Amino acid sequence: MKIALAQINFHIGNFESNISKIKSAIRRAKTENVDLIVFAELAVSGYPPRDFLEFDDFISQCKKAVDDIAKCCIGISAIVGSPTKNPEFQGKYLYNAAFLLEDGKVKEVRNKTLLPNYDIFDEYRYFEPNKVFEIIDVKGKKIALTICEDLWNVGNNPLYTVNPMDRLMEQKPEMIINIAASPFNFDQHETRTEILKKNALKYNLPLFYVNHVGAQTELLFDGGSMVINAEGKIIRELKYFKEDFQVFDIENLEGNSNHRPLLKYHPSNVKTGLIHDALVMGVRNYFKKLGFSKAILGLSGGIDSAVTLAVAVKALGKDNVLSVLLPSQFSSQHSVDDSLELVKNLGSPHKKIEIEDIYRSFEGSLSSHFQNLPFGIAEENIQARIRGVLLMALSNKFGYILLNTSNKSEAAVGYGTLYGDMNGGLSVLGDVYKTRVFDMARYMNRNGEIIPENIITKPPSAELRPDQKDSDSLPDYEILDEILFRYIENRQGPKELIRMGFEEAIVKRILRLVNINEYKRYQTPPILRVSAKAFGMGRRMPIVAKYLS
Amino acid sequence: MKIALAQINFHIGNFESNISKIKSAIRRAKTENVDLIVFAELAVSGYPPRDFLEFDDFISQCKKAVDDIAKCCIGISAIVGSPTKNPEFQGKYLYNAAFLLEDGKVKEVRNKTLLPNYDIFDEYRYFEPNKVFEIIDVKGKKIALTICEDLWNVGNNPLYTVNPMDRLMEQKPEMIINIAASPFNFDQHETRTEILKKNALKYNLPLFYVNHVGAQTELLFDGGSMVINAEGKIIRELKYFKEDFQVFDIENLEGNSNHRPLLKYHPSNVKTGLIHDALVMGVRNYFKKLGFSKAILGLSGGIDSAVTLAVAVKALGKDNVLSVLLPSQFSSQHSVDDSLELVKNLGSPHKKIEIEDIYRSFEGSLSSHFQNLPFGIAEENIQARIRGVLLMALSNKFGYILLNTSNKSEAAVGYGTLYGDMNGGLSVLGDVYKTRVFDMARYMNRNGEIIPENIITKPPSAELRPDQKDSDSLPDYEILDEILFRYIENRQGPKELIRMGFEEAIVKRILRLVNINEYKRYQTPPILRVSAKAFGMGRRMPIVAKYLS
Repeated sequence: MKIALAQINFHIGNFESNISKIKSAIRRAKTENVDLIVFAELAVSGYPPRDFLEFDDFISQCKKAVDDIAKCCIGISAIVGSPTKNPEFQGKYLYNAAFLLEDGKVKEVRNKTLLPNYDIFDEYRYFEPNKVFEIIDVKGKKIALTICEDLWNVGNNPLYTVNPMDRLMEQKPEMIINIAASPFNFDQHETRTEILKKNALKYNLPLFYVNHVGAQTELLFDGGSMVINAEGKIIRELKYFKEDFQVFDIENLEGNSNHRPLLKYHPSNVKTGLIHDALVMGVRNYFKKLGFSKAILGLSGGIDSAVTLAVAVKALGKDNVLSVLLPSQFSSQHSVDDSLELVKNLGSPHKKIEIEDIYRSFEGSLSSHFQNLPFGIAEENIQARIRGVLLMALSNKFGYILLNTSNKSEAAVGYGTLYGDMNGGLSVLGDVYKTRVFDMARYMNRNGEIIPENIITKPPSAELRPDQKDSDSLPDYEILDEILFRYIENRQGPKELIRMGFEEAIVKRILRLVNINEYKRYQTPPILRVSAKAFGMGRRMPIVAKYLS
Repeated sequence: MKIALAQINFHIGNFESNISKIKSAIRRAKTENVDLIVFAELAVSGYPPRDFLEFDDFISQCKKAVDDIAKCCIGISAIVGSPTKNPEFQGKYLYNAAFLLEDGKVKEVRNKTLLPNYDIFDEYRYFEPNKVFEIIDVKGKKIALTICEDLWNVGNNPLYTVNPMDRLMEQKPEMIINIAASPFNFDQHETRTEILKKNALKYNLPLFYVNHVGAQTELLFDGGSMVINAEGKIIRELKYFKEDFQVFDIENLEGNSNHRPLLKYHPSNVKTGLIHDALVMGVRNYFKKLGFSKAILGLSGGIDSAVTLAVAVKALGKDNVLSVLLPSQFSSQHSVDDSLELVKNLGSPHKKIEIEDIYRSFEGSLSSHFQNLPFGIAEENIQARIRGVLLMALSNKFGYILLNTSNKSEAAVGYGTLYGDMNGGLSVLGDVYKTRVFDMARYMNRNGEIIPENIITKPPSAELRPDQKDSDSLPDYEILDEILFRYIENRQGPKELIRMGFEEAIVKRILRLVNINEYKRYQTPPILRVSAKAFGMGRRMPIVAKYLS
């Protein structure tokens, strides 16, 4: 029996495109004499469809898509994920379902049991959990068909009281299929591989796993679909960050080459390499799926805009990313020189617009209202906002999407100007701490200098007043990032951090900054998610609150 | 037996203030010989604490608060809501609990069974549902103690398979207590009253209901706690939009005056009146809880900024709201005159800053880059953004919070400039359709003109180019708002709307505009929620998608 895994980049709500990609994979599978082709979770709608699931019209379109795809399944079976109506009055309105299509129609439907409802997941908002366990039969093979999280309770996950595989084992399946929508973070491939291996080993069954690939706004799906044999050995992984299609003969699994795409990263920088590739895919897909091709960004001479530009050039091509240098009276010559060297290295276009005249014009209009108060945050922000207006003007005039260049450390402590440098359609580095932005720059320079060395080595500065340095107002990034990581990713509290040896005053100040700047993060662009706890949909905080603040 | 209902405005995470308010109500209850005082759901933490619930430190503080409050409960019993750790390994980490405090300590804990996980609710993200049903005993009285949603399955709610009251009835309680966190929308008081009456009638028991009051960022809690007798008759409602404290003698319920605070609204404008009062509370609490007192806003001469200003003056006092007139070369004289008349009516301060000079300065810097292309959206947006920069400059310099003046119709179709007029710390009217903004203006004028008549009657215009009118680019607001309401609140799809008689081209255009402008709404300020489906945390949509777009 031959099984094909189809790892596809779907487009949420774009039924025409999703159906067409699925049908084309089915046609290809037929030419390779495949018996069963497997697609990912909620393939027809794309994942996550979020509140589109509350629209009857959207659900009808999902049903039509499944019926349409079924018609192609003559002489081949297919497993396709789709939301489907719960036929009972009782319970949530929908199931998260896997359809088995055969002989031109829907032969079986199996529903998801374990519904993730943490971090970025909201599945309990929409779906009723499955309570009936039954294997499926394809060409006489008994298959335990599961959906993503269903395999994530290997007997020890406190979130769930049911283990779908334990129940399915009562019917003696011969293999496991899991269709998934498991988003990337820089530790996720390890966790995921471990969980899948444990399942194969525990049940002593081969496991076929199909994941999504591609970016859905902030969520990055890395692919890495795989086949694991009954001894828990990975037979083959599909590509990371790219569509892929592979056929496996289940009678001769070992005959498939042992392809491990992650081996391409040097062991010392697997995480940085993965983040880099994830971000490139994130930018590329954001533009492509929205129907845009050109990006614009402000190049300050600092590391964040430099790395953002380099990622964007990888994603969109050098001719499609316009850098704008926007120096003020406070900008250093090296900022301009370093920026020019960077665009030269990349071969990408740039413009330069001095902002001092406009700044003077604001100063003139405001002077009578500012009552001779000294230069301060207001004046600093005016500069950042003038840059924001100029970049948006070019964006509006020529159809560029503005890329936001803030990093996670800045976003965390509110070191940035709302409606100024916090503007953009998409934040590329908003889930990357400053210290890792430096790692990324070095990683991108691994085969020759792209980011000028001076950008990497000079002390970071916003250059909004004379001789300003980030270190005037923030602790060293090494310390800042470690406290932020422990507070944000690990949810460690002040007492715990102080007990670990961090200075009390610094801990309190940083935690307070994170909490009082929730209002700024509320209005920032979507952030490409590369960590297990990114700002955005996976971290939901009240703005008006008084906790550690 | 005397029962006190304490309807309090809590502050999320502000344990010191919440504990102090609770203790002070307990002291007052003691002086009135109360046997049992009842506080709302998650009273000690405030509602909704959102992801603060994932911090151990936060949960410890909740526990300390409950223990601290318990110490005051000598000679009196109290029921207080708080999150609490799930002692079992299995299940979510927390319960949403009601503590019975007596004799200086925790006597009983009861957990919430039905966990709302729709619209603005995420309770299944944090809490394990209760599965054990036991009444409590206070001074020999058997009480069915329930938490909010626990009463929302009067046998017919498909979301839930359990009915906590049915289970508790097996133990023959003599009364029902429900502690709640039920946010306002303009239909909610009716729905809520109906549900509570049905419970009292179905179980033939008196019902004591305590709700939150006050704003928590976008969520507005209207209070309206109440007592209903076993015949389903409302004995008394507590105040709406204000803290309240009432004592009831359960042996003589009818002796309490039949206070119905909603009767103060004229039947023809109950909804508009409720929305008005909810928004005033929303603005007032946002500022107070963040420790700010002064607001700023741009006054355009249009209805939205006029109504926003009038609401803000009600909320913060006339001296605390600065209006800034920001006319351009495209502004009409009547815009300036109408604005001046409005601030005169309100007695509130204003400034005027012409923006043409700054506009010319941007034009000069951009002319070589704009390549003689005709005046268009880019130039319109520059004007809106200059206003945004000026308002934020004053905000930064003097500590004002900028109020956003967009309405729901505009927010829906993306008729507004990101980083321009979409700026602000809080959106006052972002959940109020344009047609209802007019109703609000008329409502505020009911005892004499506040909003100048000309602002209400003239055709809406953004005045960003010569002779511009909203009707140049949008359908009539009467039609637009009806289609938007059906699509957003009712989730009706295009086929259904066209079948109802709306013109196909208009339906498709409007639905497309709503969907393609998700990216703009993602970056807008929190919106005070007055409807059953507001933009923000209760409506979660992907930005990158292609559905009806």
